[in-house]
Amino acid sequence: MKRKRLEKGLTQVYTGDGKGKTSAAFGLALRAIGRGLKVYIVQFIKGGFDYGELHIVDNLPNLKLKAFGRGKFVTEMPPTDEDVKLAKDAFNLAEKVVNSNEYDLVILDEINVALNLKLVDVDEVIHLVRNKPKHVELILTGRYAPPEIIEMADLVTEMKEVKHPYTRGIPPRKGIEY
Amino acid sequence: MKRKRLEKGLTQVYTGDGKGKTSAAFGLALRAIGRGLKVYIVQFIKGGFDYGELHIVDNLPNLKLKAFGRGKFVTEMPPTDEDVKLAKDAFNLAEKVVNSNEYDLVILDEINVALNLKLVDVDEVIHLVRNKPKHVELILTGRYAPPEIIEMADLVTEMKEVKHPYTRGIPPRKGIEY
Repeated sequence: MKRKRLEKGLTQVYTGDGKGKTSAAFGLALRAIGRGLKVYIVQFIKGGFDYGELHIVDNLPNLKLKAFGRGKFVTEMPPTDEDVKLAKDAFNLAEKVVNSNEYDLVILDEINVALNLKLVDVDEVIHLVRNKPKHVELILTGRYAPPEIIEMADLVTEMKEVKHPYTRGIPPRKGIEY
Repeated sequence: MKRKRLEKGLTQVYTGDGKGKTSAAFGLALRAIGRGLKVYIVQFIKGGFDYGELHIVDNLPNLKLKAFGRGKFVTEMPPTDEDVKLAKDAFNLAEKVVNSNEYDLVILDEINVALNLKLVDVDEVIHLVRNKPKHVELILTGRYAPPEIIEMADLVTEMKEVKHPYTRGIPPRKGIEY
């Protein structure tokens, strides 16, 4: 498949409390590689989890993924030194990937959560977005996208939870929720 | 990869005017096949379009897709005889796939739009959902999900458009919007 760069990459945000943010990003990754674009997914906070999609990523051409996290969501405040270090490592990699000239679509999965927890500095993200190579499309996912990020993005979708089986006590199911 | 059926399949709806509904469904498909589940995607209204994801679907194990449509979105009212026939064919296939005992996750992409246009009968969809085999997870996407469908679903996410580059006159881009 011949690789064709984007003429102008934009910045997209998927936020809100509803299901489908990370899935939408993975769906977009699929679309992009279907066109021969190269995709890199950096996962904040999530590393160590066993998600179904991770088992298929290696089968896909032009798609790389690296996850940073302690194997559970960071909920305690303040986060541990390890959380801080992992988020820094994730962001350093994100900067490198975005500016590498090798990837067309870069997904920063759950970065909004890391921003909300102050594990990543919002000014650094704004700097990254403002100075990214023109052809790179950026996707930022996660609840609690800060207002500065929403303001800067070209496209923002809020996933709103209308109804969720968790609230009926149905636990997460392998292959569907993870 | 060993196939493991779901213990209890639910019904999920992705609706609203924001970007990410079909992408979320494809991301869920990826997760499911990553777990060895079998997935079938029936696309209403969409057939004949050239979407990036269609170029990669054939490379994926345990994923089938069939699209029904005239190569453009149905916007005229009333829809043509051909639109009616294609939607009927799509729904007939959906019924067959759901009840085939061969698939674990069945995605009815854009069926909500077909329902809204009365190309598909809401009572028939309710009947399909109520009588589906227990292990089948159903995903219904598209704007304008009728209230009866929302009512019946176990999980509903509304994708809300907060901001979209279309409104700034940026046309759809290959590899990103299609």
